[in-house]
Amino acid sequence: MSTATSAETTWRRGSGDTVTAETLERIDQWWRAANYLSVGQIYLLDNPLLREPLTRDHVKPRLLGHWGTTPGLTFLYAHLNRVIAERAQSTLYVTGPGHGGPGLVAGAYLDGTYSHVYTDITEDEEGIKRLFRQFSFPGGIPSHVAPETPGSIHEGGELGYALSHAYGAAFDNPDLLVAAVVGDGEAETGPLATSWHSNKFVNPVKDGVVLPILHLNGYKIANPTVLARISDDELEALMVGYGHKPHVFVAGFDDEPAEQVHRRFAELLDEVLDEIADIKAQARDGKDDRPQWPMIVFRTPKGWTGPAYIDGKKTTGSWRAHQVPLASARDTAEHLDVLREWLESYRADELFDEQGRLREEIRALNPPEGLRMSDNPHANGGLLLKDLRLPDFREYAVDVPTPGGSISEAPRVLGQWLTDVIRQNPDNFRIFGPDETASNRLQAVFETTDKQWNADFLGEEVDDNLSRAGRVLEMLSEHQCQGWLEGYLLTGRHGLFNCYEAFIHIIDSMFNQHAKWLKVTNHIPWRRPIASLNYLLSSHVWRQDHNGFSHQDPGFIDHVVNKKAEVVRVYLPPDANTLLSTYDHCLRSRQYVNVVVSGKQPAPNFLTMDEAVAHCSRGLGIWEWAGTEVAGEKPDVVLAAAGDVPTLEVLAAADILRRELPDLKVRVINVVDLMRLQDEREHPHGLSDAQFDGLFTADRPVVFAYHGYPWLIHRLTYRRNGHANIHVRGYKEEGTTTTPFDMVMLNDLDRYHLVIDVIDRVPNLGTAYAGLRQRMVDKRIEAREWTREHGDDLPEVRDWVWPDAGETGTEQGGPQQSATLATGGDNE
Amino acid sequence: MSTATSAETTWRRGSGDTVTAETLERIDQWWRAANYLSVGQIYLLDNPLLREPLTRDHVKPRLLGHWGTTPGLTFLYAHLNRVIAERAQSTLYVTGPGHGGPGLVAGAYLDGTYSHVYTDITEDEEGIKRLFRQFSFPGGIPSHVAPETPGSIHEGGELGYALSHAYGAAFDNPDLLVAAVVGDGEAETGPLATSWHSNKFVNPVKDGVVLPILHLNGYKIANPTVLARISDDELEALMVGYGHKPHVFVAGFDDEPAEQVHRRFAELLDEVLDEIADIKAQARDGKDDRPQWPMIVFRTPKGWTGPAYIDGKKTTGSWRAHQVPLASARDTAEHLDVLREWLESYRADELFDEQGRLREEIRALNPPEGLRMSDNPHANGGLLLKDLRLPDFREYAVDVPTPGGSISEAPRVLGQWLTDVIRQNPDNFRIFGPDETASNRLQAVFETTDKQWNADFLGEEVDDNLSRAGRVLEMLSEHQCQGWLEGYLLTGRHGLFNCYEAFIHIIDSMFNQHAKWLKVTNHIPWRRPIASLNYLLSSHVWRQDHNGFSHQDPGFIDHVVNKKAEVVRVYLPPDANTLLSTYDHCLRSRQYVNVVVSGKQPAPNFLTMDEAVAHCSRGLGIWEWAGTEVAGEKPDVVLAAAGDVPTLEVLAAADILRRELPDLKVRVINVVDLMRLQDEREHPHGLSDAQFDGLFTADRPVVFAYHGYPWLIHRLTYRRNGHANIHVRGYKEEGTTTTPFDMVMLNDLDRYHLVIDVIDRVPNLGTAYAGLRQRMVDKRIEAREWTREHGDDLPEVRDWVWPDAGETGTEQGGPQQSATLATGGDNE
Repeated sequence: MSTATSAETTWRRGSGDTVTAETLERIDQWWRAANYLSVGQIYLLDNPLLREPLTRDHVKPRLLGHWGTTPGLTFLYAHLNRVIAERAQSTLYVTGPGHGGPGLVAGAYLDGTYSHVYTDITEDEEGIKRLFRQFSFPGGIPSHVAPETPGSIHEGGELGYALSHAYGAAFDNPDLLVAAVVGDGEAETGPLATSWHSNKFVNPVKDGVVLPILHLNGYKIANPTVLARISDDELEALMVGYGHKPHVFVAGFDDEPAEQVHRRFAELLDEVLDEIADIKAQARDGKDDRPQWPMIVFRTPKGWTGPAYIDGKKTTGSWRAHQVPLASARDTAEHLDVLREWLESYRADELFDEQGRLREEIRALNPPEGLRMSDNPHANGGLLLKDLRLPDFREYAVDVPTPGGSISEAPRVLGQWLTDVIRQNPDNFRIFGPDETASNRLQAVFETTDKQWNADFLGEEVDDNLSRAGRVLEMLSEHQCQGWLEGYLLTGRHGLFNCYEAFIHIIDSMFNQHAKWLKVTNHIPWRRPIASLNYLLSSHVWRQDHNGFSHQDPGFIDHVVNKKAEVVRVYLPPDANTLLSTYDHCLRSRQYVNVVVSGKQPAPNFLTMDEAVAHCSRGLGIWEWAGTEVAGEKPDVVLAAAGDVPTLEVLAAADILRRELPDLKVRVINVVDLMRLQDEREHPHGLSDAQFDGLFTADRPVVFAYHGYPWLIHRLTYRRNGHANIHVRGYKEEGTTTTPFDMVMLNDLDRYHLVIDVIDRVPNLGTAYAGLRQRMVDKRIEAREWTREHGDDLPEVRDWVWPDAGETGTEQGGPQQSATLATGGDNE
Repeated sequence: MSTATSAETTWRRGSGDTVTAETLERIDQWWRAANYLSVGQIYLLDNPLLREPLTRDHVKPRLLGHWGTTPGLTFLYAHLNRVIAERAQSTLYVTGPGHGGPGLVAGAYLDGTYSHVYTDITEDEEGIKRLFRQFSFPGGIPSHVAPETPGSIHEGGELGYALSHAYGAAFDNPDLLVAAVVGDGEAETGPLATSWHSNKFVNPVKDGVVLPILHLNGYKIANPTVLARISDDELEALMVGYGHKPHVFVAGFDDEPAEQVHRRFAELLDEVLDEIADIKAQARDGKDDRPQWPMIVFRTPKGWTGPAYIDGKKTTGSWRAHQVPLASARDTAEHLDVLREWLESYRADELFDEQGRLREEIRALNPPEGLRMSDNPHANGGLLLKDLRLPDFREYAVDVPTPGGSISEAPRVLGQWLTDVIRQNPDNFRIFGPDETASNRLQAVFETTDKQWNADFLGEEVDDNLSRAGRVLEMLSEHQCQGWLEGYLLTGRHGLFNCYEAFIHIIDSMFNQHAKWLKVTNHIPWRRPIASLNYLLSSHVWRQDHNGFSHQDPGFIDHVVNKKAEVVRVYLPPDANTLLSTYDHCLRSRQYVNVVVSGKQPAPNFLTMDEAVAHCSRGLGIWEWAGTEVAGEKPDVVLAAAGDVPTLEVLAAADILRRELPDLKVRVINVVDLMRLQDEREHPHGLSDAQFDGLFTADRPVVFAYHGYPWLIHRLTYRRNGHANIHVRGYKEEGTTTTPFDMVMLNDLDRYHLVIDVIDRVPNLGTAYAGLRQRMVDKRIEAREWTREHGDDLPEVRDWVWPDAGETGTEQGGPQQSATLATGGDNE
């Protein structure tokens, strides 16, 4: 990589010289070339340089794409090229209005990068023809900015995340400028509206700089945009309120000569970059409090340089320019003429030589290799990705003298390991979360780092573990956490996002886009693998003691498994050692989304570290110590669990069964890696049918206690031989603010109900053990009544431990924990 | 209802008189009473008025709730009570920081409303004891503001929607004031950050007024808040930038006497309400452009009036006051003392009489019935709900001479009916959408209404169907659309939300909360049913021709069906007449979330209106005209479809089968109401097993072409006898920017593949029809190659019509449509 790193060579001020007319002419030519190539991509199937008369057969039969935002993006591209080259400034270009795909593809083509990575798209007339044809064409490339677009880390589909991605890229890249274009449509989205505040979380010394460029082209599909229709004063106040110093640029609304337009913007860009250079210099001199970072308001007409009117209707400068303004170019001679004139207005013959190659003098505007926005290595983060230095997680194991023989808050144990992950990886690993890193019991990390914060400080009495630089980022916006982390990962770093399980649904749609990005990049040879996106959901559905029904939703797992098996993984470690082993695996992995659900409340540990490693490596397995199988014989019933609370209830049920029905051959299975349940043809982690049958049997009843919505287990085991025998208990949208055991009872996932399920499903038990069944029913009533009387769980439930456990000790290094399981509850 | 409606009696200016010391004393007493009751709810199990010495047994064993935000909310409640009574101002109180549940419950109790709706919570000592005990207690009430809380339309769980809900409530309620408290934690969320811009969409004459109150208490669970840690200048600029006139109030940080604090706030509130009254008066005089609405910055300490320090750690005015500051109140005598002193500081004996009833002089602060915030009828919208006047949808039917014998864009037809729905219901029905009402083909509505907009106008040339008042609201924020609609429905009106199918996931989490609200209110007797929340997803997964992979996701249906069957419905009408019939049903329904997916591209109509009504009433059924069954005999195979694109492919497959395998007895089934597939014990719409077997058979192969992820069909039919024979084709995360038929081929949902599926599944066909099978494979290859060559679908595919269709005409009133199905593509 060619990014300069020494203080002397980065963040230079400009020369101060006036930009020459010749340079401005080059910028204009480059811009015209990019616009020509953009229009060509949208409309032309053939005759790419108009070297023969344009006919309808040269026009694509289906016109699909977006013109409106494109010329603004290419204008900025051209001007950024100049300053990048002059200042040797490593620059990433994040374009929120990703509809402008043709413009970014055109830029990468003019840079030479496109032909470098797609060798069939050559720098000649034939190459341009292919470039045009492939755009939004079957077998070709998407119409938006996409993984296929060199230089992009930001899919241009769903809107709202441009600034979050930009800041994610900037963290820990002190020499990187991220020019982030915010569309004024996108600016109306919630995530974008709050992401301006990212400037309170960036460190001016240790992080890079985001330059937001608010592109006010004024229109969406069919409406004006809000920010283009408030007064200049209000808009400026808004930007000041967001913490920025706004610089306003307006062009394209009158007949100002091109040279003058370019000169004004070039000067403004120099001014802005000089301001940034000054801030950076001050920061290097020790001033690390929050500066008023500059931003640009870039007000230009939608579809700038396109046809002013079509059929008497205002097009350029209106919402009509949003998509394909001449959708009928093929249908009428008149419209074909409009298209021809439009294309000719860019004077392609002045821009491309005989062979169709961009003329040398225009190429001179391109920055050197490695500094081109289309080949900036940060945009292909896998190129820069370094393996984490991971401490041996085994050394952080909790002691488990017997199954259930110690109690931990699993994330607290994980936090100790993460503390050393942070120590050993001080500049490429971060933890993101809305407000809950401590609440989620990861607070050990604050032994070695802080929460990064660059708004006001009020002193230690109230500011806990806050400082100008730190490895933890907390803002009460799941969108920001997700967007920052995505940007951080896409530029070649590592991290995790800890969140409430219910509220991770807030970023369902962002997860979709990231999973799609990973899927597509798996099949783009020049894209290098990036680190996985890791979730830790430790405030989960079963323990919303403070919050109740509104905070209960385990459906993120369901949402995730709809995505391609090649990119998603779901883990439900049942205790502290399995969580450690799981997370070590996650932080080593690439190109996945790993969802890890693990409760934060005190809970028994069942597996020693050696057992945990084996269990996690298998992904699931029989816990022989918990069952009552007879070697060489089939079990009568299988009790399976996935998730920490279900595991506890299954074990408590197994305990009842071994006491009450000692001859019943019970097999107990625990599932860590949910995808193991699926068929091996469906998911790479899937068990073969033979393996599955060996574990779950093909003909015995299986009572499966699952963390989430029960249907998912049916779905995953749908093709299994014994699937008709699998009976699942899980969350069924029943809950309130109540005790832990009352909560599992409300959903029939409790130990007593699991015993009833066994009695009802194993042949002949129903009659023989009607008394036991009735006692189980009575136990549930007793437990229910107890909670209503005492506000707490029945002591025999709350204090239950696995009978082999003996004296239950606490083992987790941190402050002594109560051996009672049911204390506390989720914060917030 | 007692809401005043004439201009003379609403939006009065205040008297202008100085607020008396006596009134200020009443406000302080009311506030102390509310705070006392709040602390009591969090901590006390017994001894509610401290009439005996406090012991640990009086303290709840599990302390669950949130104190920090509560005293601010009660302070505002007390002051609002004064101005409501003085001005007879109907006022709804929306509290973003819903953690402050105890405060709102306390307010409703002091109002007398609580005892009115919960008759066991009496206005005496015993009632207070019950009030305390039930809070966040098994069998009791949630700790947050919730459906159980009188006066609330806003669940206090997930954060970010306070202002959207508030504006939704204000639309079309010209006399309603909505006092909307925004927490400074919540203010960091994306949805909240953009919702300030709602003021550009509200009409000062026809709509009510939202008064945002930004509660800067400075802290979240463990962090300071961003807006409390920027300069006063930046904060003020931000509010001005959002279009507001900020009024700043700061209190609680020094020893200012209570009377002075109350006086300052009372005066500020009078000033703000007078400003609003003036704006309203000007608006009534015809000034309907956007005023600079006032808002209040309310800066008070977190946990105000609580213990300053606990164990030497700053508590009030810090994040430590967020939840239960004295979680150990039961554990040590010292902490029990802190709790006692805290409770005693409110001097409950001055507030409650011997019986434990609020003293009369303090009760005098309560507004009269109907104007109390806890009994404002708008907060129990079902009280105000009027049935829509629905025009007879049959009159909007498209002509269908033969199945497939005409072509429509179904939403365009629906739009014509909706136009008359709007005409006949000019003030209680609205359409919400990000930017796509026209793109989604509902543009007929603009014959009768406009998009409401109150930012700048630039003239008709660019402002299409925009005006200061209109029934359509479009802002590019799915969160805003959803939040506005929820607020509108919760206050007793009707509406629909049209959105891209993929991006409706943006509000997954909001849907969760609304569905939970509906489920809970179904079981609260005093809550009246409200209108259903209706989605129209007409830019769906199969036709993202412009956008490709990033815009493809049919998983919202999966997300929805995880919620309780009693509140969710999913419809997939296959053509225009079925869409009309479905939507008529949806707009008549109550207490549901109705998800309707119906493509907007030109597509054949199959059912006459009579047939459509019958089909939709059944929810699914056999299309005999499409099959080749023999009366009295079982079919050999069932071809089923749910969704418009799958229906087309199934019919095309049926066409091939009847030509190629005329003796094969094919049954064709179409499913409109997806929930019919489920077992009747699972969903109220579910078919009985006998009905299901009668349709799908228990033993014949079923090839099921489904709109979404295939697993959902397996899930819904899991318990059916024949489920092992059901083979589902659907979306499997394969797509790109391509042609419509290429898209279905990518996911093996195409006609040729369906024929292959039949051959592979009907016994003995495989060998006998190996040649046909091979021709189907070849057809797919040919179709694929054709798209790559021509950029369009194979004409025989694109132009295919049902063979009985004869001459395909266009029948939809609007502009003539191409009879070719594959033109166009989704906008944006």
